[in-house]
Amino acid sequence: MSDNTQLLGISNAIVDVLSHVDDEFLDKIGAPRGSMTLIDETRAHEIYGLMGPATEMSGGSVANTVAGFANLGSPAAYIGRVADDQLGEIFVHDMRSLGVDVRLTPAPANAPTARCHVLISDDGQRTMQTYLGACTELSLNDVTDETLGTPAVILLEGYIWDLAEGPAVAAKAIDMAHHYGGKVALSLSDSFCVERHRDAFHAAVKDGVDIVVADDDEVNALLQTANFEESMQALDDYDNLFAITRSEKGSVIRHGDEIITQAATPVAKVIDTTGAGDAYCAGFLCGLTNNKSLKESAEIGTFCGTQVIQQMGARIEPGILENFGA
Amino acid sequence: MSDNTQLLGISNAIVDVLSHVDDEFLDKIGAPRGSMTLIDETRAHEIYGLMGPATEMSGGSVANTVAGFANLGSPAAYIGRVADDQLGEIFVHDMRSLGVDVRLTPAPANAPTARCHVLISDDGQRTMQTYLGACTELSLNDVTDETLGTPAVILLEGYIWDLAEGPAVAAKAIDMAHHYGGKVALSLSDSFCVERHRDAFHAAVKDGVDIVVADDDEVNALLQTANFEESMQALDDYDNLFAITRSEKGSVIRHGDEIITQAATPVAKVIDTTGAGDAYCAGFLCGLTNNKSLKESAEIGTFCGTQVIQQMGARIEPGILENFGA
Repeated sequence: MSDNTQLLGISNAIVDVLSHVDDEFLDKIGAPRGSMTLIDETRAHEIYGLMGPATEMSGGSVANTVAGFANLGSPAAYIGRVADDQLGEIFVHDMRSLGVDVRLTPAPANAPTARCHVLISDDGQRTMQTYLGACTELSLNDVTDETLGTPAVILLEGYIWDLAEGPAVAAKAIDMAHHYGGKVALSLSDSFCVERHRDAFHAAVKDGVDIVVADDDEVNALLQTANFEESMQALDDYDNLFAITRSEKGSVIRHGDEIITQAATPVAKVIDTTGAGDAYCAGFLCGLTNNKSLKESAEIGTFCGTQVIQQMGARIEPGILENFGA
Repeated sequence: MSDNTQLLGISNAIVDVLSHVDDEFLDKIGAPRGSMTLIDETRAHEIYGLMGPATEMSGGSVANTVAGFANLGSPAAYIGRVADDQLGEIFVHDMRSLGVDVRLTPAPANAPTARCHVLISDDGQRTMQTYLGACTELSLNDVTDETLGTPAVILLEGYIWDLAEGPAVAAKAIDMAHHYGGKVALSLSDSFCVERHRDAFHAAVKDGVDIVVADDDEVNALLQTANFEESMQALDDYDNLFAITRSEKGSVIRHGDEIITQAATPVAKVIDTTGAGDAYCAGFLCGLTNNKSLKESAEIGTFCGTQVIQQMGARIEPGILENFGA
């Protein structure tokens, strides 16, 4: 099978349930500010029952990147499990409406579509309690010649290593990509996720993953270094392409001896930092797959991340590249 | 049965599905800008399929008022039909989390929970395509001594006359209210709804409804007058209490010979006018049920409406009365 897909994401398909909370609420449920915790169905009901009125919208880190990539005008596809319920329909609708080729449709599952309870503090900080539901049923059968196709880049997220068949799915995707000549990118998800699966991520990065997308905390966790400078030194031993975001410190692209430092763009007011890294990733990969230089790809990534932090919501709006370089 | 409920709303229980559109989109689906159209399930799927990514949140005009009333700190209750699906769960959660006593729980239905496709134009104008789904199954059996209780005010919305048993439900609620000595308020919903049910609304206002809440267009439609001045003249023949909102012209309370004119509060920037009338209604009824004068009730209504137009979303945030009169 051959297609013109530039980016295919494999990740947890999640609907976000967003609500404002105070610190007392976080104390009550025992959630550290800014953390992401995996919870089971019972706990999900408990927390939802305690939460105030909420707003629902499609989310998921790599899903956000894929949606953003499509909104940048490049052909994108997606593999992730949702149940055949209303939240599953919402997730798939939101992706398809952007032109993303969603390759698994809602299907009967033992658990409902995943949701992430996003608890927003007054200062914009987000604490996440994620119930993976139907995502956990992602299986080896979901990744086939048919569903994978031959995208230029396959983007995996660290979070799929939390799923029973996740590591096997990742290994199969990496194998298939290298067989047809595609690249594999890995988003490291979050530093706690890296702690959970460091050895497996290490092995994948050493053998199979071409591009690593991460923030500095995640890279430090992967390399077990104390700070960014130590990480840059440790990367002497790696020939993967690393795209590392550093919030207001900008980003660094590292490929063997080549090091590109990209400054952040100052903004008048940060509205909501959610999805900044995902948007950067969309822009960066959009540059790469359109044969831009690493420098220009970093600039596009920065442009996208800068847009997203100045709006509510994690996904890049369509048409923003019209203003790139303007 | 006796309870301390101040306001009980009976209305369509709807989840809003919000998305930004351009005028071309409205042309394509043949929807006049700013209109509210009732659609069937097939059409709902069609329109949703054409829409871009959306955000979901609980809505419904009188449901917004009841939610706002609860957020103002007064005991509120609600009767409206949702199916036992995820959108139904979302609707009920959002009401209960504000302390609203939801008296019908999600139950098996022949149709899914209602949704309103809210199509937002660049200038903030909203065009609505509403699929009533499970709402249409509201029945006489849903209004009993048990579910109705003895609230100080029962608030009906004009839209329930669109349901098969809606007129009978309204008649029963009016009857029961007068039996135990409660007041009945009617929100006229929208001027097209008034056109659809003018005779029935007229009859209800002439015999049973104590309080009419409406904007000037709706009052003109009810009274078949050409403008607001003519409506005020026509109201000489009515002894109901009318609370009439007039956007930037403020509001007018009319009760027999008593006429109170309340100016609008100027705001720096209108963000989203959705729910302004519903919020005014919540504030006004909150004043009335707390034994405030008509003048002060109009001031509270204005305060609430002014808050809501300066935020995204139709529902009053909790605690806003702390700043009332400040």
